[in-house]
Amino acid sequence: MLPDRLRALVHLFARLPGVGERTAQRYVLFLALEAGTLPDDLGAELGRLRQYVGACGRCGNLAEMDASGAALCAVCADSRRDPSLLCVVARVQDLLAIERSGAMRGRYFVLGKLLSPLDGVSPEDLPLDRLLARVKEDGVAEVIIATPPSVDGEATALLVARELLPLGVPVSRIASGVPHGGDLEFSDQITLGRAISGRRAVDAGR
Amino acid sequence: MLPDRLRALVHLFARLPGVGERTAQRYVLFLALEAGTLPDDLGAELGRLRQYVGACGRCGNLAEMDASGAALCAVCADSRRDPSLLCVVARVQDLLAIERSGAMRGRYFVLGKLLSPLDGVSPEDLPLDRLLARVKEDGVAEVIIATPPSVDGEATALLVARELLPLGVPVSRIASGVPHGGDLEFSDQITLGRAISGRRAVDAGR
Repeated sequence: MLPDRLRALVHLFARLPGVGERTAQRYVLFLALEAGTLPDDLGAELGRLRQYVGACGRCGNLAEMDASGAALCAVCADSRRDPSLLCVVARVQDLLAIERSGAMRGRYFVLGKLLSPLDGVSPEDLPLDRLLARVKEDGVAEVIIATPPSVDGEATALLVARELLPLGVPVSRIASGVPHGGDLEFSDQITLGRAISGRRAVDAGR
Repeated sequence: MLPDRLRALVHLFARLPGVGERTAQRYVLFLALEAGTLPDDLGAELGRLRQYVGACGRCGNLAEMDASGAALCAVCADSRRDPSLLCVVARVQDLLAIERSGAMRGRYFVLGKLLSPLDGVSPEDLPLDRLLARVKEDGVAEVIIATPPSVDGEATALLVARELLPLGVPVSRIASGVPHGGDLEFSDQITLGRAISGRRAVDAGR
């Protein structure tokens, strides 16, 4: 029953992650009926998105572009970061999650994708040359591989570690195990297996 | 950690109904990283929204505007509708819900708001003159008041019914009671009270 043009807008909103037809219609009705200048403001910002945001030329993180189209992200521009520590992640979302944790004092390298035979992603599709060049240029002393603990994530971690082997740089992998607040009773076998094989010595002090 | 311009976009998305900061950030990251031309398409449609969609000049439903800025909605333009049956609703969303039910063969009149002493909405704020004119012009034979079964909805229904009294047109109110599939055990007192006072004779046939 919506006008055709509004239906087109509903279909566009329904392409956002986690948004179905019903939620999209709710957004569109709100925008059409109650939102004041929000449609124009949102439309203008979205229309400019591709002009002002791009991938950081060094790490692949989201960054604001300057007039020449070059982009350097907030992490790469931060001189207090330790350039000798490099964290390799699959996606920008993972980088942002690690940043929220505050646990990383080094810089990042975003692969953009994971090795995935099923989806036809082979080693040649990963930016391994750029990663190796970055490690050499920056004199990186440790590479932390923070791909997710899934089949594709593990395969990618192994591939990256092998590629870095000739450089002699120590490579580590983030820990996998029972999450904070998680229940052993309801943890799956693989998680529990990893929690046990990845156990660490307890220093009981004296 | 997001670039400033992306944070501005997150704040705009967070104004959509039911969207918090986290969901908005998820939308923005998807748009910035994985959505191809979706930001531009969505931006262009949103930017044109106010130009092509307006309130139907007869009923207030959403409608596409013609070159002169006039708008006639799909219901009002549908000649198979019974013009002598008029359904009064508070919001366009309610009109669309009734249309989805397929239970209404007449046309509509959207009040736009409900009487609400708490929010400072008084009888003068409702388009009662336009409603009376519409009833007279169209030779309406029955008005169905479909405002919601809330305090404000009931007060508005009573006001509309009183205004229509001098015209001598029969006025009815949608039924309120236990919803289809609802449980009597978990129905509130007011709903059960209405279900009982609004009971209908059962025709057991022969």
